[in-house]
Amino acid sequence: MADASRHDRTARQLRLLSDALDTGRLGPVRRLINTLSPAEIANLLESLPTAKRSLVWGLVDPDDDGEVLVHVGEDVRESLIAEMDPDELVAAVEDLDIDDLADIAEDLPDQVIEEVLRSMDRENRDRLEQVLSFPEGSAGRLMNPDVVTVRADTTVDVVLRYLRLRGELPDHTDYLFVVSRKHQYLGRVSLTSLLTHEASTPINELIDDEQSAIAAGTGEREVANQFSDHDWVSAPVVDENNILLGRITIDDVVDIIREQAEHQALGAAGLGEDEDLFSPVGRAMRRRLVWLFVNLCTAFIAANVVGQFEGTIDKLVALAVLMPMVAGLGGNAGTQVLALTIRGLALGQVGASNVMILLWKELRVALFNGLLMGAVLGLIVLAWFRNVGLSMVISVALTANLLLAAVVGVTIPLLLKRMGFDPALGSGIFLTALTDSLGFFTFLGLATLLLLG
Amino acid sequence: MADASRHDRTARQLRLLSDALDTGRLGPVRRLINTLSPAEIANLLESLPTAKRSLVWGLVDPDDDGEVLVHVGEDVRESLIAEMDPDELVAAVEDLDIDDLADIAEDLPDQVIEEVLRSMDRENRDRLEQVLSFPEGSAGRLMNPDVVTVRADTTVDVVLRYLRLRGELPDHTDYLFVVSRKHQYLGRVSLTSLLTHEASTPINELIDDEQSAIAAGTGEREVANQFSDHDWVSAPVVDENNILLGRITIDDVVDIIREQAEHQALGAAGLGEDEDLFSPVGRAMRRRLVWLFVNLCTAFIAANVVGQFEGTIDKLVALAVLMPMVAGLGGNAGTQVLALTIRGLALGQVGASNVMILLWKELRVALFNGLLMGAVLGLIVLAWFRNVGLSMVISVALTANLLLAAVVGVTIPLLLKRMGFDPALGSGIFLTALTDSLGFFTFLGLATLLLLG
Repeated sequence: MADASRHDRTARQLRLLSDALDTGRLGPVRRLINTLSPAEIANLLESLPTAKRSLVWGLVDPDDDGEVLVHVGEDVRESLIAEMDPDELVAAVEDLDIDDLADIAEDLPDQVIEEVLRSMDRENRDRLEQVLSFPEGSAGRLMNPDVVTVRADTTVDVVLRYLRLRGELPDHTDYLFVVSRKHQYLGRVSLTSLLTHEASTPINELIDDEQSAIAAGTGEREVANQFSDHDWVSAPVVDENNILLGRITIDDVVDIIREQAEHQALGAAGLGEDEDLFSPVGRAMRRRLVWLFVNLCTAFIAANVVGQFEGTIDKLVALAVLMPMVAGLGGNAGTQVLALTIRGLALGQVGASNVMILLWKELRVALFNGLLMGAVLGLIVLAWFRNVGLSMVISVALTANLLLAAVVGVTIPLLLKRMGFDPALGSGIFLTALTDSLGFFTFLGLATLLLLG
Repeated sequence: MADASRHDRTARQLRLLSDALDTGRLGPVRRLINTLSPAEIANLLESLPTAKRSLVWGLVDPDDDGEVLVHVGEDVRESLIAEMDPDELVAAVEDLDIDDLADIAEDLPDQVIEEVLRSMDRENRDRLEQVLSFPEGSAGRLMNPDVVTVRADTTVDVVLRYLRLRGELPDHTDYLFVVSRKHQYLGRVSLTSLLTHEASTPINELIDDEQSAIAAGTGEREVANQFSDHDWVSAPVVDENNILLGRITIDDVVDIIREQAEHQALGAAGLGEDEDLFSPVGRAMRRRLVWLFVNLCTAFIAANVVGQFEGTIDKLVALAVLMPMVAGLGGNAGTQVLALTIRGLALGQVGASNVMILLWKELRVALFNGLLMGAVLGLIVLAWFRNVGLSMVISVALTANLLLAAVVGVTIPLLLKRMGFDPALGSGIFLTALTDSLGFFTFLGLATLLLLG
């Protein structure tokens, strides 16, 4: 799977840009930047340390400023907004699509939002306010109210004439939505069916009413799942009375999927997906400290466990040498189970109906691996310390810790979810806390009972 | 971000299905399954333990079998294929799109592939063979050769008549591709521009030639990046002579992005993204063993480091109590840096031009957090063991280990990549190996020098 050429494009742009910046001549830098799409510029800005980032941000074509702000992560967005004066900001964002504007609204100063609302016509202002009335992460917040609708009691010919009059269609329009007089959603008509049917065909005959609309309150992860389950490019959003409010398009869904992926990858380590690669040291420090302090507390518990056995260790120092192995192997085995469970939860594949079966499978895997690894470890310890009892104790303790790691790996994300927390967040820290403490306890406890008895 | 309703749909389907299966009456199960899309059925099958999975697989409408096989992960696909006889398999896959067929070709028995090739017409056989001639993970392998092309020297009217004659268009057709007589790619014409322009408009005037085609050898991650940078729904694929070979559509790109996300999340723990939640215990065991054995070796190195200081520990058992804290905190701090670096590499945001700046930032974060956490830890140790020297030693050792964790977290993924390995795979195990070994060494080494000198 490794493929050195994969990131060539971004990496090459980054290198060219860095070289150009190093020469100090800004003309070539500006030309280079303005050949890129806003998403590419956003990616480049995220790759730049703070000082260079400000410099490059000043060179971006003001027409692209708004789109770039939409595409960067929240932390970087804040840093870019902090460098713009209110007039620049209003100019940058006032031409954005309603859904994009809603997306960044919370990061904009109130003064700027008010200015933008004032500059809009009545219809767009109402639309933006409606989108903002839905909670972040809901379908209503993601949708774009700019939708092309048609009536069922008309013909292909009439619709084609209407479209020619209208001119441009919104991006990613693959279907027109059919609505009733009360603007209720009835179904959709594909552009391809308009193109491949005779002009006299009634729209009625072309309606595809199989795609049910998305309720405005649906969560964004569910929206993403529906899109990928049905291979949609766009989908209608309705309120509780089936009134059509807007549409969600695949480009926003791709962004959601990417964000969720980053959330899972960074979340287990206790970082947010908006973490800026080059965030100011003070901010990065404070964010990491939270989890390190949690970790300090859990590490104290583990140290206390060891502390209970000071007398035992004092008599057999080899225990101190070997105890990190039992804890470490348990931690890594548990991390594997944890990763599998978190993915299963994210995909909706793990629930009450199968969690016991999953646990049973993981316990068997842990038992077999524990016995095998325990035997190997026992033999090595025997050769190293020439102590049969010690060798047996470490074999048993390792097997016990792998079994425990399986239980903890399956249950921690489920417990976090049950308690209303994000199952990914910080789960790795809780897992190693338990595999450390209980690994030490089993190993040192068994040694106390069996070797010094 | 936590939202209990997110996975409701899959979880609800899973619960309904499990309840129906438990009653033993298969009629309702079959009816439930056949209201779902192939992707939803695939997701459900992945959520089921092996025995129930076989049962449900037997109830899926044979018309959906092929699409379901395309949507499940590789491990689950193998287990489903193993239950079908060759005739069923041929029937299931022969109507798949060329790109989907190519996607699962390597998992099908040779006999089935030959049968399918024999049943195809000459044109489709050539197309499939062409797609299969490109390596897995390349644009050529992802593309669908079924593309609608038009000539530049014609009019909207002629194209519309051609489309009406042709009837159905391939899924996700948002643009028609304009080609020369030699089938070279010249540009694209959107369906919306065909709909919004007068019948007499020359195609020439509607060509958008800004979107450059994707070279067939491009890697799939780069393809995904280009799609999300430019908000494409479909894109043309060409060979080295700019001859149009096919097109890639957003649904495949969404699958790539999901797979990469899973790859990163599971890879750090040493699992593949195709890992089946309910894989047979024997297989799961063998896969995990590989990394656990790597971990056993690294743990031995750490144990050996501790072993060098047996004499020191023998004189001051408190060292054994405290040493896991130094190692564990370093491991967790390093995991945070690691997650950030791996994401940066995946997005192409980390390269030679900025790695030193990233490292410098992480070193400063580590220094400040190390001094702060070290001070807190030192005070607690002072209160606990009433030993000023020990308290100072652990403060310094913790700071040193956090600095080391920053270096290791930044460099391990880069080194793995430089050596041609996947930067995510097993990186967590290598990181904790180093933070453990060097954490023990610093702490016990300093204690030996300063406390027993």
